[in-house]
Amino acid sequence: MTVYLVGAGPGDPGLLTVRGAELVAAADVLVVDHDCPDEIVALAPPSAERIVVRGRAPLVPSGDGTDFLRSLVRRARTASSMVRLVAGDPFVFASGAAEAKVLLDEGIELEVVAGVSAATAAPAAAGVAVTSGPAAAALMVVSPLSPAPTGIDWAAFVSGGASLVAVDAENGWPELASDLAGAGMPAETPAAVVVAGTQPSQHTTRAHFGDITELRPGTPAIVVVGACADHDLAWFESRPLFGKRVVVTRTADQAGELSRALRIRGAAPIEIPAIVVTDPPDGEPLRRA
Amino acid sequence: MTVYLVGAGPGDPGLLTVRGAELVAAADVLVVDHDCPDEIVALAPPSAERIVVRGRAPLVPSGDGTDFLRSLVRRARTASSMVRLVAGDPFVFASGAAEAKVLLDEGIELEVVAGVSAATAAPAAAGVAVTSGPAAAALMVVSPLSPAPTGIDWAAFVSGGASLVAVDAENGWPELASDLAGAGMPAETPAAVVVAGTQPSQHTTRAHFGDITELRPGTPAIVVVGACADHDLAWFESRPLFGKRVVVTRTADQAGELSRALRIRGAAPIEIPAIVVTDPPDGEPLRRA
Repeated sequence: MTVYLVGAGPGDPGLLTVRGAELVAAADVLVVDHDCPDEIVALAPPSAERIVVRGRAPLVPSGDGTDFLRSLVRRARTASSMVRLVAGDPFVFASGAAEAKVLLDEGIELEVVAGVSAATAAPAAAGVAVTSGPAAAALMVVSPLSPAPTGIDWAAFVSGGASLVAVDAENGWPELASDLAGAGMPAETPAAVVVAGTQPSQHTTRAHFGDITELRPGTPAIVVVGACADHDLAWFESRPLFGKRVVVTRTADQAGELSRALRIRGAAPIEIPAIVVTDPPDGEPLRRA
Repeated sequence: MTVYLVGAGPGDPGLLTVRGAELVAAADVLVVDHDCPDEIVALAPPSAERIVVRGRAPLVPSGDGTDFLRSLVRRARTASSMVRLVAGDPFVFASGAAEAKVLLDEGIELEVVAGVSAATAAPAAAGVAVTSGPAAAALMVVSPLSPAPTGIDWAAFVSGGASLVAVDAENGWPELASDLAGAGMPAETPAAVVVAGTQPSQHTTRAHFGDITELRPGTPAIVVVGACADHDLAWFESRPLFGKRVVVTRTADQAGELSRALRIRGAAPIEIPAIVVTDPPDGEPLRRA
């Protein structure tokens, strides 16, 4: 009866943590956001129950969100090692904190395993360092799904060398952009839109803020606004792990232990049996507060 | 002649990425920040040359920084697989961007492997979710080693539900705090100081901003300021991987391949031979711009 709240990283399965890989490989129940990489889901033992959460688990429990959290608690009580796999990092604009709080209030043992956030990794994979020297001296991360920060003179912010990153930009970027423009974000600020960052289908659009305020980018999308996006954007392209496969191997002496060998090699994809897709458990697709 | 710029994560070796572990295990040269975990350095083959960079590699090349970058380029030219291991994430207040630019300008092939940043993982390990619902609706990351962001009404920022995280807070937090206080950060804002986050010696101090403006915390330190630090701080303590050991095993059929089995189990620490400590190469301990 332990729940491991694990960040799956930004999309490239190689950016899962070693600890996360170990825990997924030992799970008897895996509750996974629909946008976590298949290669990571495939690390779970074939016998593990897989519950895929469509839509988004709630940042703040309310309505259906409470139902989802109740079902999570119910399932956790009979699981021996349940992994709750969350895209990115559980605590960066994800549902991790709300879920952790409910599980702990219910007396369920919990371990949080941080993940690589797309907020920094997706720009990096597109050649944008969100903090780097005086031209990128501070980083603000926001989401269209959360209230836009107030009290900020965006013109001074960007001219002072700070970077803005919007995560989940596929969910209402034009509305957030409108708030930012209304609060003084200069139209000529360099910007980059990174869709599917770190994934094989990664696509980057370079622009100025004023040119992309009405854009509805593909999913998942990260928008970067600030001088950092002008830093010679194309100076590299990260080469993610795709094309190789993440494979779990077990030998007799390892079976039943915490330890399982995790190997990365050119191998066929693993068959994933018996995925239970839920929308989410007991509810409608959820909206975040 | 490929350089892999790899984020080592926040301190818990289990928070290294799978891709990072694989690359360290295959390196013939490892250039590593002094504050990267020993367990990760130990993943490199015994025959690998190890170069430990004391102090901090520069965020912006200048003076000794240029010397360091030149020596990096020189060593990269004769290495077959050089890993430049950076604490945290290479592009979050680290020297990664400056190093990547120089290496690419010199025609050296580069892959960037993002890491888990202490900016989010250290608070998480202390039970603080830096973004979570309306009370933590935006995140600003700053460092005493970079110019403080301007144009921000900090009172409105924190009352609007945003979180401030200062990384590298062991390097001049009082000076940064003085800037923040001067720019209106309310003294009663909840705050948390996390020293050695995710490590066995992790220690958290809970306070209000006004009480810690003169604090010189131990190293490495993260300071969180905002309502998120008041979220029932002690609701969990993450249990990091320490006590177990990260062990690389190789069998005949795996030797020489990309793939190496990475196993986590209760085992004795690995002996690390022939560490070359540099301060950094060709220079004095460096200061960041």
